[in-house]
Amino acid sequence: MAEPHPGADAVLDAIATTRAIRRYTSDPIPEDDLARILFAASRAPSGSNRQGFRFLVLRDGPAATEAKAVLGAAFRRGWEAKRSGDGYDAGSGAVDDSPKARTARAMQHFVDHFEATPVVVLLCMQHKRGHITDGGSAYPAAQNLLLAARALGYGGVMTMWHGMVEPQLRAILAIPDDIDIMATIPLGVPQGGHGPVRRRPLAELVHDDAWGGPADWAVEPDGTRHTSAGPPPGAGAT
Amino acid sequence: MAEPHPGADAVLDAIATTRAIRRYTSDPIPEDDLARILFAASRAPSGSNRQGFRFLVLRDGPAATEAKAVLGAAFRRGWEAKRSGDGYDAGSGAVDDSPKARTARAMQHFVDHFEATPVVVLLCMQHKRGHITDGGSAYPAAQNLLLAARALGYGGVMTMWHGMVEPQLRAILAIPDDIDIMATIPLGVPQGGHGPVRRRPLAELVHDDAWGGPADWAVEPDGTRHTSAGPPPGAGAT
Repeated sequence: MAEPHPGADAVLDAIATTRAIRRYTSDPIPEDDLARILFAASRAPSGSNRQGFRFLVLRDGPAATEAKAVLGAAFRRGWEAKRSGDGYDAGSGAVDDSPKARTARAMQHFVDHFEATPVVVLLCMQHKRGHITDGGSAYPAAQNLLLAARALGYGGVMTMWHGMVEPQLRAILAIPDDIDIMATIPLGVPQGGHGPVRRRPLAELVHDDAWGGPADWAVEPDGTRHTSAGPPPGAGAT
Repeated sequence: MAEPHPGADAVLDAIATTRAIRRYTSDPIPEDDLARILFAASRAPSGSNRQGFRFLVLRDGPAATEAKAVLGAAFRRGWEAKRSGDGYDAGSGAVDDSPKARTARAMQHFVDHFEATPVVVLLCMQHKRGHITDGGSAYPAAQNLLLAARALGYGGVMTMWHGMVEPQLRAILAIPDDIDIMATIPLGVPQGGHGPVRRRPLAELVHDDAWGGPADWAVEPDGTRHTSAGPPPGAGAT
């Protein structure tokens, strides 16, 4: 018989309510909380338990300050391109309280205040093999990190916009050539808070026995709210 | 101020005690538990919230049975090659109760009984861009899945040995060409149980301000036990 964790409901609730957080208060993250978050991150699995994940923590040291400025400029360029390219100001984006307009405001605030983010973690990885499954040894750690942050009252978001300035970042932070930067994860105390995330209906995401096989049993909790069908052009990562 | 989740300790404990589980009892996973596990998996973030992750559930249907047989044969070949290639029977592996010997026994049992695994989830993904960060939209869901399984009293492990038989699997399961198989995740009720995982000392995994910058504050909970330094040749994914 399955023996549930005594805190099973809390675990499932935390997973279901870990939102992408992009607006932070000016509160710092105390080092003991940061240690707990990174300890949780490092409990993640990796291929053959090689533990190729590394966590480069940017706070207010000299290299971190320079790196955050470079990242901030990149994020502003990235958002500017996405805002126009993905039509954030068109259609429902022009309606003030539409999800699209709210996402756009959160994104603008995020990039405008990037340098003030209390902590930015660069998730790095060694042992790349050049295969699509490489990230299987890195991103479970990212998810543990975000869940642990949420548990302790913080929030963050996984972003990839470091890619635009990777050579500069590597130089500033002395990142060796054989180390990949897998994600940039800003963290802080949320302005606003966590809550249920929205996804497509579960039955659309689950296939039973073969591709396209209906999974009638893939029932969601009552009251689950969904994103609209198809790639939501204005949803952002949530 | 940070507002912790009311079940923060449970969340952190579940994260720290989610082991790779490879030995399962014959107990099935009821559909309502499977739905809860997959619901949790689908709460994961993905780039621009595109939700390209898909969960192909193999139980005892006709296609699943055929796919599990093909996977089982592949896993046995994979383990045979790893067992000799990684020297599982040499050095401490020859000592009956060494971690290496225990891992080898668990692996042998795992592959010998693969077809009897109650549920095998193929984590699939669309929207590949051919970049090392692609997995950032898939493996957070894998980690959510494993954590939710652990919370409800199940266990599993993320494996990549489907790669050896991917063409056959795609044919049997009718997986479209534009869909990638990102991981094979067997699930069941653990023989034995979960418990604290071992990793390298946290301070080795965390860098502060720049690469190589010491993170003296990255202190672990009392009593944390570590893997030995360097890639542990006999450790398996744990």
